[in-house]
Amino acid sequence: MELYTSGKQLRDLLKSLKKEGKSVGFVPTMGFLHEGHKSLMVRARRENDILVASVFVNPTQFGPGEDLDAYPRDLESDQKLMESVGVDYVFFPTTEEMYPTGHNTYVNVEGSLTKRMCGASREGHFQGVATIVSKLFNLCVPDRAYFGMKDAQQVAVIQRMVEDMNFDLEVVPCPIVREQDGLALSSRNTYLSTEERKDALKLSSSLARAREMIEEGIRDAHLIYDEMKAIIDSIPYARIDYIEILDARTLEPLNLVAGDVLIALAVWVGKPKLLDNIRLEVE
Amino acid sequence: MELYTSGKQLRDLLKSLKKEGKSVGFVPTMGFLHEGHKSLMVRARRENDILVASVFVNPTQFGPGEDLDAYPRDLESDQKLMESVGVDYVFFPTTEEMYPTGHNTYVNVEGSLTKRMCGASREGHFQGVATIVSKLFNLCVPDRAYFGMKDAQQVAVIQRMVEDMNFDLEVVPCPIVREQDGLALSSRNTYLSTEERKDALKLSSSLARAREMIEEGIRDAHLIYDEMKAIIDSIPYARIDYIEILDARTLEPLNLVAGDVLIALAVWVGKPKLLDNIRLEVE
Repeated sequence: MELYTSGKQLRDLLKSLKKEGKSVGFVPTMGFLHEGHKSLMVRARRENDILVASVFVNPTQFGPGEDLDAYPRDLESDQKLMESVGVDYVFFPTTEEMYPTGHNTYVNVEGSLTKRMCGASREGHFQGVATIVSKLFNLCVPDRAYFGMKDAQQVAVIQRMVEDMNFDLEVVPCPIVREQDGLALSSRNTYLSTEERKDALKLSSSLARAREMIEEGIRDAHLIYDEMKAIIDSIPYARIDYIEILDARTLEPLNLVAGDVLIALAVWVGKPKLLDNIRLEVE
Repeated sequence: MELYTSGKQLRDLLKSLKKEGKSVGFVPTMGFLHEGHKSLMVRARRENDILVASVFVNPTQFGPGEDLDAYPRDLESDQKLMESVGVDYVFFPTTEEMYPTGHNTYVNVEGSLTKRMCGASREGHFQGVATIVSKLFNLCVPDRAYFGMKDAQQVAVIQRMVEDMNFDLEVVPCPIVREQDGLALSSRNTYLSTEERKDALKLSSSLARAREMIEEGIRDAHLIYDEMKAIIDSIPYARIDYIEILDARTLEPLNLVAGDVLIALAVWVGKPKLLDNIRLEVE
């Protein structure tokens, strides 16, 4: 495994490998890797000749009041995980490498896709995501790029962007990885106290309950919403950012649960805002 | 010469040619080609194995009140010109191909580079330019892309974008091509009446006078501006959009004329707004 800090050097190398007919799989991350990231890398390892991962805590996707410096980092542990999976090249740029003085270009996915859900409370977040992912795509020239479905809205935004910008690659969404008790893995879980960690289980329970209701034949989105909200509200200090029942492709809200459905939530459990979701095909 | 209307088909072809080690030169145009465009293609033909040109009247770069439908088009004449230069592939997409339903991603170069000069009077223009050029870059995968210096601000915006977005290509700015009497070539010249055509010469004359003053040792930008303005104001019906004396790299206005200098103007001569500029190294 080799570490690159220069995007141009990495690109030159990858271009020469691609000329030999090798395919490139790419897993962009902000580091502090867990089994969720690992699952993306394992899959990308299997599906490509070359595996590239990036570790970059991207300042432009942190909204006002969000603490960039406090974001957890552990490159040593990250390197061990990536080595164990068989990552070939790690791109580990400095902020100056990605955003040199004078940098002034941004990619925006407009419309409700970025304005609702996480976009409503995190101004500029998806612009930062679309911009850094575009830059990384141009440097890491992947044939396939892997993203976790835990950030379902991020996946939808990136898919939209890849299609609109005519990027020549496939976006591969990968399933959420959970702890044994159901909690979706996240770098943010590290902020949870023991008490909060226990209460956080209500998030995945509320989604399990939603699935159960749908299996029982309930199709009224408001009924499902109310039941999910009641479960989460039983954590007295939790603060709901959103609970949404959506068309999985457009992320438009549904009144009637049918088709390709995404049920997504974002809830502050103490300090961290936790995300979780389920996607299901409903007749 | 082959015409492509599908971006994906063209890209697949160009990718296979690049795998054979062939270099790709690219000249994006809005059609209605003249000797200015031809000079870009002649140069690109010389410097690359494969020459790709695009003809697409891009709706997103027309500002409010600008008449997209009235933009001159003549594909037959364009094809003859491109054939004569030895263009290999013409990309001629429909609007639906470039902006299908649901398209919602845009590239923005922010800051004074796009807010002043043509950006001040043409809201959204440079967003449209940056977006379509990004898309064309991703479809035509050029090693080199050629742009005319008549649109000096456009060249600066695209250079900024290519650097910021880590596009893997070289932007090649090419000199303005003029009529024998000095008028800068432009598709918009077709709108000029005989009288206006004669008066329009004052634009290049004012730039020639500016050059003369600098050669005489004058360094006060305001003196040069005043003299240029007087020359252009002698066309009674002309309306000046801007006359700017700038640092050629940053496009920041200069008080003292020194270094790499761009003198640029935009003037409505009757219906069309005409652009012209000179770039000079001043000690």
